[in-house]
Amino acid sequence: MNIFTRKQIERALSILKVLEEIERGFILYSQKKAVVPPIGSMHFSSPPGDCHIKYGYIQNAPYYIVKIASGFPENPKLGIPSGNGLLLLFDQKTGKPVSIFLDEGYLTDIRTAATGCIAAKYLAPKEISCIGIIGTGAQAFYQLQLLRYATNCRKVMVWGRTASKAQQLKNDPRLQEWNIEIAKTIEELASSSNLIVTTTSSHFPLLLEKHIKPGTHITAIGADDVGKQELDPKIFSKAQKIIVDSKVQCKQFGDVSFALQQHLLSEDNLIELGEVITDPSKGRISNDEITVASLTGIAVQDLQIATAVLSNL
Amino acid sequence: MNIFTRKQIERALSILKVLEEIERGFILYSQKKAVVPPIGSMHFSSPPGDCHIKYGYIQNAPYYIVKIASGFPENPKLGIPSGNGLLLLFDQKTGKPVSIFLDEGYLTDIRTAATGCIAAKYLAPKEISCIGIIGTGAQAFYQLQLLRYATNCRKVMVWGRTASKAQQLKNDPRLQEWNIEIAKTIEELASSSNLIVTTTSSHFPLLLEKHIKPGTHITAIGADDVGKQELDPKIFSKAQKIIVDSKVQCKQFGDVSFALQQHLLSEDNLIELGEVITDPSKGRISNDEITVASLTGIAVQDLQIATAVLSNL
Repeated sequence: MNIFTRKQIERALSILKVLEEIERGFILYSQKKAVVPPIGSMHFSSPPGDCHIKYGYIQNAPYYIVKIASGFPENPKLGIPSGNGLLLLFDQKTGKPVSIFLDEGYLTDIRTAATGCIAAKYLAPKEISCIGIIGTGAQAFYQLQLLRYATNCRKVMVWGRTASKAQQLKNDPRLQEWNIEIAKTIEELASSSNLIVTTTSSHFPLLLEKHIKPGTHITAIGADDVGKQELDPKIFSKAQKIIVDSKVQCKQFGDVSFALQQHLLSEDNLIELGEVITDPSKGRISNDEITVASLTGIAVQDLQIATAVLSNL
Repeated sequence: MNIFTRKQIERALSILKVLEEIERGFILYSQKKAVVPPIGSMHFSSPPGDCHIKYGYIQNAPYYIVKIASGFPENPKLGIPSGNGLLLLFDQKTGKPVSIFLDEGYLTDIRTAATGCIAAKYLAPKEISCIGIIGTGAQAFYQLQLLRYATNCRKVMVWGRTASKAQQLKNDPRLQEWNIEIAKTIEELASSSNLIVTTTSSHFPLLLEKHIKPGTHITAIGADDVGKQELDPKIFSKAQKIIVDSKVQCKQFGDVSFALQQHLLSEDNLIELGEVITDPSKGRISNDEITVASLTGIAVQDLQIATAVLSNL
């Protein structure tokens, strides 16, 4: 059994390979060739925090995966990142542990951003005038980093609750190639951007239906647990195409679940990302459409990024 | 973060400490001071196998635990044990991984057997004439090893489907101090024994109500998943005391779940092991009673054994 550190993992990671493997994972998932049981979770109150366990496998593939990811929002007060975690691969034929990736949440960050990139590739309008990023945390950074693989647009508007954090993102030397402006309001951001990515841990809608102009694609990645919400549910009745990573899971939580509960959306209108990758005509078919990708995160993404990295280790 | 091998773990394990910590864990669990979410599971078909993920924590304790255990019954054909797994402790205040125990399922074996010992300590009649072990796998061995801490009785009757495996257990040099006889039938075993431990992966009742004589204690540990069953559900209407590790979990699977479904038992009659440890008068009060401990396995046991071992590492 091999144990890999974050440094080893960072060195072995090929973004192109990761994107390819994750696309393949979504296709297999939507073809019902993956087994992804319900997520396990634990919640803590003092200090507040949570831990999610995602696990699953692709039939007849070599491994099954268990990923443990935590978020303790007060960690930065102690000088450590809020997110942490690790990822384990096991032999699907014997149950033997094969590899432990001590990635400290890095692979989760990358696979989430890679999926944002894939969503933009298949769903964003051809000409992206400006990318709107709502939120200023780690995913705001990683989404931009990965969006380089989906678009040539380098104009960005960012909005965050805390002005200093938006400024920090704008000044991040790793994002030099991006021309980042800070939006005063979400309305300003939405009126200037036709690709919007929401990356917050909000528990109420931030992006409202009235903000959205025709021809916008929205990728919502923050609502990864019960109670979390970033989008006005009315956006889903306005949008022409609604794409989810997992139909089953998006009924349970995430932005789509609120729209379903309020009957603003019928389950029949949901399209899985894997279906769009297989047949892109199921996604955006004109520049005027409003499209939404609501992503809650599934173990297949973790399995695929781990498999991609393992082949370089 | 520390990573421990099976050898290191075996050396650091103190049975007495483990027994003490597991008793304490059951008490806290029954006092609702532990959080133990539903078990995660994956099932595989070719070759057949399963993987269980148990996780949880005790409030205000230092760690939370995630344990991953697998069973691939055809592994022995490849010369490797059917069970495997590992156990992870995380800091309950930050989510940081603290220790990985690469125990290959050893800690699960020991904590399961330790719980059998605790059940016998509180529930078996004072004078044990003979211990009946149904099943001949790893748990048959470990239950005997640990029962040394609950009784001076060294007379054992063992029954298994495969005669050669029963013979192997009888001849195991590590069990020299035991006087082991092989029973031809379960009926013979039950008529000679007043402490019976069922350790099989059976999917139908092996031990029947008509086999059980007054004054018998039964510990059933094999039915740890949906569909598994070792005891005739009628045993539960015959028994005076029915003890479970977790009321919540025993409703979902395990031998008790069948008796509940068939209305042979009311939920109100279930007593948790933690309640009996706190107040032994809730357990056996006479030598003539029939008592049953139906154990499905909870993360608190894993947490407590890991914590006990960690303090010696």
